[in-house]
Amino acid sequence: MRIAERIREISPFFVMKILAEAKALERQGRRVIHMEIGEPDFPTPQLVVEAALAFIRAGEVKYTPSAGLPELREAIAAHYERHYGIQVPAERIFITPGASGGLLLSLGLLLDKGGQIALADPGYPCYSNFVRVFDGIPCLVPVNETTAFNLDVDLLRNVWNDRMTGIVIASPANPTGAIMDPQVLKGLLDYVHKHAGYVISDEVYHGLEYGECGFHAPTALKFSSRALVINSFSKYFGMTGWRLGWVVMPEELIEGAERLAQNIFISAPTHSQVAALASFSEENLCELERRRLLFRERRDFLCQGLEKIGFSIRAKPEGAFYVFADCSRFSRNSSEFVMDLLAETGIAVAPGLDFGIHHSERYLRFSYTLPVAELAEGLERIEAFVQRRAPAVPLKLEKLC
Amino acid sequence: MRIAERIREISPFFVMKILAEAKALERQGRRVIHMEIGEPDFPTPQLVVEAALAFIRAGEVKYTPSAGLPELREAIAAHYERHYGIQVPAERIFITPGASGGLLLSLGLLLDKGGQIALADPGYPCYSNFVRVFDGIPCLVPVNETTAFNLDVDLLRNVWNDRMTGIVIASPANPTGAIMDPQVLKGLLDYVHKHAGYVISDEVYHGLEYGECGFHAPTALKFSSRALVINSFSKYFGMTGWRLGWVVMPEELIEGAERLAQNIFISAPTHSQVAALASFSEENLCELERRRLLFRERRDFLCQGLEKIGFSIRAKPEGAFYVFADCSRFSRNSSEFVMDLLAETGIAVAPGLDFGIHHSERYLRFSYTLPVAELAEGLERIEAFVQRRAPAVPLKLEKLC
Repeated sequence: MRIAERIREISPFFVMKILAEAKALERQGRRVIHMEIGEPDFPTPQLVVEAALAFIRAGEVKYTPSAGLPELREAIAAHYERHYGIQVPAERIFITPGASGGLLLSLGLLLDKGGQIALADPGYPCYSNFVRVFDGIPCLVPVNETTAFNLDVDLLRNVWNDRMTGIVIASPANPTGAIMDPQVLKGLLDYVHKHAGYVISDEVYHGLEYGECGFHAPTALKFSSRALVINSFSKYFGMTGWRLGWVVMPEELIEGAERLAQNIFISAPTHSQVAALASFSEENLCELERRRLLFRERRDFLCQGLEKIGFSIRAKPEGAFYVFADCSRFSRNSSEFVMDLLAETGIAVAPGLDFGIHHSERYLRFSYTLPVAELAEGLERIEAFVQRRAPAVPLKLEKLC
Repeated sequence: MRIAERIREISPFFVMKILAEAKALERQGRRVIHMEIGEPDFPTPQLVVEAALAFIRAGEVKYTPSAGLPELREAIAAHYERHYGIQVPAERIFITPGASGGLLLSLGLLLDKGGQIALADPGYPCYSNFVRVFDGIPCLVPVNETTAFNLDVDLLRNVWNDRMTGIVIASPANPTGAIMDPQVLKGLLDYVHKHAGYVISDEVYHGLEYGECGFHAPTALKFSSRALVINSFSKYFGMTGWRLGWVVMPEELIEGAERLAQNIFISAPTHSQVAALASFSEENLCELERRRLLFRERRDFLCQGLEKIGFSIRAKPEGAFYVFADCSRFSRNSSEFVMDLLAETGIAVAPGLDFGIHHSERYLRFSYTLPVAELAEGLERIEAFVQRRAPAVPLKLEKLC
């Protein structure tokens, strides 16, 4: 029986093996500290819950227009005005089933078989797989601390070719938490647009930035109305299981996006859309700010603790809820390290391998989606674990690109 | 700027034009009777609403495993046992964001660029477009009353070729409401599997059958464990806006489906999954049976009324909530007829053009997702409308296939 070629190219996540192993340990009565998962530990904000309850109670949970509830599209347009001072017509905003739906819609619109998409390595592993869904070719560009683990024009110029459809960038990024410098972002947009390509800017961690206030990471929309901007209610807004995201489309793609969305989604979940409307109230934004400050405290605590133990953090994570740490002082193979760490200490983390192929054996991703007290316990266990191990034969960090 | 080739091939729905026109009329104060929409008019069943409220109140709406909540997969397995006497391991059941997600997952697993999928014409218009999403080629097979508007082995044999990946079939079907004979279904499964292809059986209207009881339409699972069976909580279970469906995968596709679902969906909406668990209670099934009987009453009323006016119904609709009626006695162009009908009488229906290209100008699809009183008013207006029009020059119905 035939199966599509693309399926061979879609890689599984190593972290799923970790999760399965962690669950097996939990069934044996072991207490596992979960630092492998990219999901906020906070519940859905109360006002959002209440909006959902009020709506669902009436039972009228019907389809919405494919592009989403007009009120929600307007509310998102107002969000851009409020936080970025940018005017985005609501007609350009498409509500999707999660940011996953947004990536599907965007790449489905742009990518032909064999078309290439440049991606930073390390990066969110689904990007490559979404590219494979449409039979495109991910072009993984090694990045390191010299560019804060971001793409820039120099790196992109080295790989750009006639088969390039465009690039996917993320800021704050997963797994590093790095935020792209505004001028680097502008440079990338200018370069790609000059070469008739598209930029998909994944901004799902916007708002979760740990400077004085949130929303200082630049949006691609500030520099260009030709970018496709992906966002989500999952991370900053704390609504993972509600499966709701959006894409800001350039004008020229609206009509095609309408047709594609009608067919592949019908519409995003209606109750989630109505609930999400409550996200933008002052009271809810205060709650989200409180959470942001907690994340910041955790990040500081975790970074300090990891460095004290001997991990190297090569670019300070400025956003999202991850620390990408170099463990090469302790192991030449971070995937093995992860399995040993889990088996011996009950700490689950994600190995570098899940985020790319370049030097991935050096790295681990720690999520700080758990309270400081648990992070403290985790750090203690990790410290005892590495002290029991012989130090690794040092790995030399060659020039990456 | 480049846009993917597939986008040119994805057709818009004519019914969207009708909807926009209908809304414009409503803004002018006209009362529109909506017979164009494929969405039950009933609210979400009360027990499902209550289950959702209880779950959402706690605010813990987190991701589920990609294949879905284990309890829901088990409940669906029990549903197959109960209604069909078939044992399906829960591991083969994938919970998806609507049946749309199920079609995306299934065709993404199977279809390579240039691969062909045979489809009945008329049929659900998204099938062709889903095939185009993966750069496949829909092979539209004209069907008519001689096969109750279904594919059968003779029709399929005529078009089968080396590029065929498989077929998508639906029973009860949209737009005709036709149910496939069990032996025809078995024949198709045998033929396609013998030729190393896949059968995707869309069973989203299962349960909405208007014999003595529901669930007499045969499921493809009865004859083969190699079929991919798509289903949904939208139609029989009355949960459209909740965006929840499922696919029963053959054993050999489970591993690939896991990888693809992890990437393209993360997971289906969690609150919808928990709510859907309440669908299978006795009390809810009684409510759904009450609704089924109302649909049956409406169907009988509408069919009788349309035939009295002079529409021909070439295959009695046995399920779903549509009547596909031949309007060639009144018009040589059903799309024009639809626009005139809406403008003059405020009745919105879907033209044949939305369901295929073969003789589509003869047909209209009427939905009976509204109470008998409104159907009666609609029929009166339609009767007055056709009486004002000159009869059309008769169209000869040539041999279709």
